[in-house]
Amino acid sequence: MKAYLDCYPCFFNQILNTSRMITNNEGKIKEILVAFGQFIPSISVQATPAEIGREVYRIISEKTGIEDPYRRIKKRCTQQALTLYPKLKETIASSEDRLLTAIRVAIAGNVIDFGINTDFDLDKDLEELLPQELAIDHYEEFRATLKDAHRILYLADNAGETVFDRLLIEEIRKPVIYVVRENPIINDALYQDALDAGLDKVAEIASSGTDAPGTILSMCSKEFLKLFQSADLIISKGQGNYEGLSEESCPVFFLLKAKCSVIARDVGVTQGSIVLKKAKNYEFSREKGDTS
Amino acid sequence: MKAYLDCYPCFFNQILNTSRMITNNEGKIKEILVAFGQFIPSISVQATPAEIGREVYRIISEKTGIEDPYRRIKKRCTQQALTLYPKLKETIASSEDRLLTAIRVAIAGNVIDFGINTDFDLDKDLEELLPQELAIDHYEEFRATLKDAHRILYLADNAGETVFDRLLIEEIRKPVIYVVRENPIINDALYQDALDAGLDKVAEIASSGTDAPGTILSMCSKEFLKLFQSADLIISKGQGNYEGLSEESCPVFFLLKAKCSVIARDVGVTQGSIVLKKAKNYEFSREKGDTS
Repeated sequence: MKAYLDCYPCFFNQILNTSRMITNNEGKIKEILVAFGQFIPSISVQATPAEIGREVYRIISEKTGIEDPYRRIKKRCTQQALTLYPKLKETIASSEDRLLTAIRVAIAGNVIDFGINTDFDLDKDLEELLPQELAIDHYEEFRATLKDAHRILYLADNAGETVFDRLLIEEIRKPVIYVVRENPIINDALYQDALDAGLDKVAEIASSGTDAPGTILSMCSKEFLKLFQSADLIISKGQGNYEGLSEESCPVFFLLKAKCSVIARDVGVTQGSIVLKKAKNYEFSREKGDTS
Repeated sequence: MKAYLDCYPCFFNQILNTSRMITNNEGKIKEILVAFGQFIPSISVQATPAEIGREVYRIISEKTGIEDPYRRIKKRCTQQALTLYPKLKETIASSEDRLLTAIRVAIAGNVIDFGINTDFDLDKDLEELLPQELAIDHYEEFRATLKDAHRILYLADNAGETVFDRLLIEEIRKPVIYVVRENPIINDALYQDALDAGLDKVAEIASSGTDAPGTILSMCSKEFLKLFQSADLIISKGQGNYEGLSEESCPVFFLLKAKCSVIARDVGVTQGSIVLKKAKNYEFSREKGDTS
């Protein structure tokens, strides 16, 4: 999904939110706004928001000398999410369809996104999100694909959300490779964030080899691309991964909340909707006439 | 009031909103975003939002060749407002304190601002705004100043709002000079917009000599400055005029709705509040011990 012009005001808001976490120096923040302003002419019309976002955070790091402004927030998010783990585990265990409930939990975890909204209430969001109807519901296709899948990739999004991903992986009951970013970018999960959330107990942890806030294949490592190309099920969490993969032909299912109007429009739902959506450019085995 | 960094995302939003009224050419709009991005480094830390806004609209006009993108919207706003005139006139006439009610009507008229929000409902806003408490209420000082005033300037804001201004001027019952912008800027009232609203029937119409979306004295004409300096009461409508005059020492009263968080913070009220606020840097005659 390429960036829309509507993303530009949002990038400036992200700069303000993130920079103000690091510094009170308004002159420094102005410098960052200026640097991003000067970068705009070179942005290709094909660029995804994740690619531009990567540049936004590169500029912030460069100007402030702080490589990972969200480090402490990520730790706190993960700790908060871990306190919810036992209750969510019980919710899943006592549900009629454990897999579906675990998917709902994983999507609900996607509300934790400081990059877009610094103002959130986890418990309240959970209460509203868990029973929320999926605006796009490809659960049957997901279940069928999972049934035959042997090489499952799970593309992580934010720290904290990782705990919710762990609950879904525990219901998948098959080997899963959990993919995090290589370098700090917004509040996206890194290797340490996955460890903090206990992902090492349920999955193999790998890196995409990139510091883009999404999975942009041209920026990923060769090692990751090998995993990606051989996967027979890819679970993609969040907007950033969607932006990079929405046009790709691969066995991917997107689990996300459409937080902004631009993504919502591209996905084809109203803003705030949650979706479990299969790739539009891939023919899943069921559709090939395989009834297994 | 100088611009805060929080104004920058807002300028980009204004560019999108205004440009999309004129053109569907996203490449052209990107050009405008780029041009504004390139202009950011040269913006002084002392610049007011009105000064920067002026530049935003200059860039839009230059790139699109359209000098007054809001022309038709302004016409429509004025026509809409005129349909409310008889009802509002009656509301004022039947009220206990006609002047106070007319002030409330004039402030309510300030909700018409396409520059900030394209999504508005005039009737609904009026119902909510007319009884809304003034978060800052310098009505007594205003009434006292008006009583002795001989040279009254009324600084207009948006087209359409002009009709509401007319209702207040009709209650002032003294000669008033109604000041509009010299050249098109956003939806700010020009001479023709004042005529369309019937201001010529109740006031002398003058120009500030500027195309800034606010009264920035350094940008105004000599003719206007003479009027300004000799005035003994200045009624200033809206955010743009406030931005330019908030630090000046002059007998000004600001009538506005604090539509954005930046203005609200500067005025010292919560966002969405309405105020009738006297100049902070001017000693009004009452305060000098004059009890007349």
